[in-house]
Amino acid sequence: MKPVNVGICGLGTVGSGTFNVLTRNNKDINAKAGREIKITHIGARRTREDCDLTGVTVSNDIFAVVNDPNVDILVELIGGTTVAKDLVLQAVRNGKHVVTANKALIAEYGNELFAEAVSNNVTISYEAAVAGGIPIIRSLREGLAANKVEWLAGIINGTGNFILTEMRDKGRQFDDVLKEAQALGYAEADPTFDVEGIDAAHKLVILASIAFGMPLQFDKVFTEGISQIRPEDVAYADELGYRIKHLGITRRLPGKGIELRVHPTMIPQSRLLANVNGVMNAVVVKGDAVGPTLYYGAGAGAEPTASAVISDIVHVSRMVNSSYVSEDATAVPHLGYGEDHLHDYTILPIEEIESAYYLRLSALDQPGVLSRVTQIFSEAGISIEALIQKEPKEGQEHVSVILLTNRTIEKQVNKAIEQIESLSPIQGNVVRIRVESLK
Amino acid sequence: MKPVNVGICGLGTVGSGTFNVLTRNNKDINAKAGREIKITHIGARRTREDCDLTGVTVSNDIFAVVNDPNVDILVELIGGTTVAKDLVLQAVRNGKHVVTANKALIAEYGNELFAEAVSNNVTISYEAAVAGGIPIIRSLREGLAANKVEWLAGIINGTGNFILTEMRDKGRQFDDVLKEAQALGYAEADPTFDVEGIDAAHKLVILASIAFGMPLQFDKVFTEGISQIRPEDVAYADELGYRIKHLGITRRLPGKGIELRVHPTMIPQSRLLANVNGVMNAVVVKGDAVGPTLYYGAGAGAEPTASAVISDIVHVSRMVNSSYVSEDATAVPHLGYGEDHLHDYTILPIEEIESAYYLRLSALDQPGVLSRVTQIFSEAGISIEALIQKEPKEGQEHVSVILLTNRTIEKQVNKAIEQIESLSPIQGNVVRIRVESLK
Repeated sequence: MKPVNVGICGLGTVGSGTFNVLTRNNKDINAKAGREIKITHIGARRTREDCDLTGVTVSNDIFAVVNDPNVDILVELIGGTTVAKDLVLQAVRNGKHVVTANKALIAEYGNELFAEAVSNNVTISYEAAVAGGIPIIRSLREGLAANKVEWLAGIINGTGNFILTEMRDKGRQFDDVLKEAQALGYAEADPTFDVEGIDAAHKLVILASIAFGMPLQFDKVFTEGISQIRPEDVAYADELGYRIKHLGITRRLPGKGIELRVHPTMIPQSRLLANVNGVMNAVVVKGDAVGPTLYYGAGAGAEPTASAVISDIVHVSRMVNSSYVSEDATAVPHLGYGEDHLHDYTILPIEEIESAYYLRLSALDQPGVLSRVTQIFSEAGISIEALIQKEPKEGQEHVSVILLTNRTIEKQVNKAIEQIESLSPIQGNVVRIRVESLK
Repeated sequence: MKPVNVGICGLGTVGSGTFNVLTRNNKDINAKAGREIKITHIGARRTREDCDLTGVTVSNDIFAVVNDPNVDILVELIGGTTVAKDLVLQAVRNGKHVVTANKALIAEYGNELFAEAVSNNVTISYEAAVAGGIPIIRSLREGLAANKVEWLAGIINGTGNFILTEMRDKGRQFDDVLKEAQALGYAEADPTFDVEGIDAAHKLVILASIAFGMPLQFDKVFTEGISQIRPEDVAYADELGYRIKHLGITRRLPGKGIELRVHPTMIPQSRLLANVNGVMNAVVVKGDAVGPTLYYGAGAGAEPTASAVISDIVHVSRMVNSSYVSEDATAVPHLGYGEDHLHDYTILPIEEIESAYYLRLSALDQPGVLSRVTQIFSEAGISIEALIQKEPKEGQEHVSVILLTNRTIEKQVNKAIEQIESLSPIQGNVVRIRVESLK
């Protein structure tokens, strides 16, 4: 059988990882794919010393790869959403299957790209776009197909998890750890994408669309970063039996709509997810039949991401073998559900989500303050699960008061917080961290 | 498009779970499969009150389902390896795809059954045979296809994990917890299959064959159960920073062969796997590209197992859609590797495996004993990582000595144990638990 010819655009970290893993494990990968997988054309501005490109055509112009009639599968690893989008569209129109690791591209333009792929009878595979080497797309789209997903929650940004892990283990400040993460190469010079949750939001949108069978709606995710997390909140969380993790969470509230949110979250420390540390990623999926399942692994890095990219190349190669793709490219639909069967769920604004809350306030140490605070909650219909008043630090007039509420609608909590902040013995703003039991 | 007709043989726990989940989530499952999935024929000795079988043909004779020309997919849920084997062979010869949850059947007869399926151009899917609802077969066979697997370790028997969890959490005795597990329905009246590791061995053989691409070799697994685990060893493990788990482990020692073993194992308590408790299952796979990945979920039960069975039904239905199966049934080969490309690895006998060891001996509390013991290790070329001598209990002449060794070949340890047991101040046998760092 003739080889499957692969063209790769972009020879950075993931591109070179893909090239090297495919080369190193060539024999086994071919045995699994059922035919030879051959990298024939690479589009990149420069070559790399760690990649032996003997026998491979290298073009400066990445569109030369897309327009190469011998390329069967185009692997897009240039990133971004401008040129990458044109590249993928052109590849699809040229009848090539596409494999991409580009979460921003799929989250923001996936609907359009998938439609174009279907009408050209090719597939766009994107296992590497979410949680690096963890086969979470495949698990959701195929392994859990029997289930109505109830909710999904994941640590899907390694940089953020590294920072939170260091803050907890060593009592360090956010800024301090961020600098180290930048020095280690975990965080970019501009860390906004990672620490403010935009990267996680891209991934969450993709996971949510597969979990619930709905179009990609990146503009509707609520995003809150971790830059406001203070060591004292990390310590109080520990004291209460919780850990703070930066989670992407999506949940279906039957009859209401879908929650879609990225924010720091306190979760019970006995949960496996609470014990996922450093740069590792993990996703918990709760299905109605299977119950909770968890998927853990490296969320970034050259070879873990290459592992996912190559799994897609093998998938497409296996399909091409059996003249499957030419018959019906979408046997496994891009979002798991047939394109005509996507649900038209409402994405709930953050005010309408349901959560429990950790609140920390700074109050003058005088009689009556606590009773006014608890009265505000009581009038808002919010039950308090726990209330801890700390001793004032030496020389300070203010004490920290920590409250854990029961589950409630966020707008109720917003109202209560506003009233509390207007009390004269209360200093500054109320710190709020959402709490999820993930049961 | 006409429906895919499903015949189910066996209407016990998993059969009724499959029927009920398929019925309940019918609309979504059809939207994912791309056509209607319809249960048309059930073979079972009796019906069940919790399944509304209106419109379904029910036959006492399960072979009536296999020979029903309208059935496209046969779901085998009767268990066992005699009638079930005949049933699956007959289905395959009748040109039907098979979905099964039968680990014993696949582990013991898979090679023969898969060959028959290939020659009849149909597939046998068996996601439910290992670790219930966790999509581990799919993840290994597809999601991790880029990788050379280095090793795999899993908690793949929920009953055993429940017993060990209770022993640790409450300091209980094995026999006592086993009785509770039987009362709760977690363990059978004859618990041998679960507690002696036979069930885990079936599952491990399947996982290893996919991980390394080799024929199924159930007769070569080493199996040791948990019935000999004592509360004191559970407590000492804790003291040393470890937990005892009943693991299935398979590892490739390049140039030597494959380890294939089920036994109680001490693992560092910081590992996620050490924190998988109760009846839950989890599998860690270490790939050369992706690094360690973990898959967690319910390993048994009606609906979790149904989740896996139905994922296979959806898979086959999607393939049938695209006239894929009729073209080439084995685009995703049964064991991941093309049937002609399976490796001929040697399965190592237990004496040849590499592990670290926890050893507990009971010695007369007299001078010179420890030095004779450590000399034996030294002469066998085994380094000792830690040695703890406990105070003798009141009124007792013997003390417990606990040793942790470095990694070594098992036969070296066997020799040392034999010599130690022959020393006159040593009472009874040396307790040995293998230790793995799972890094």
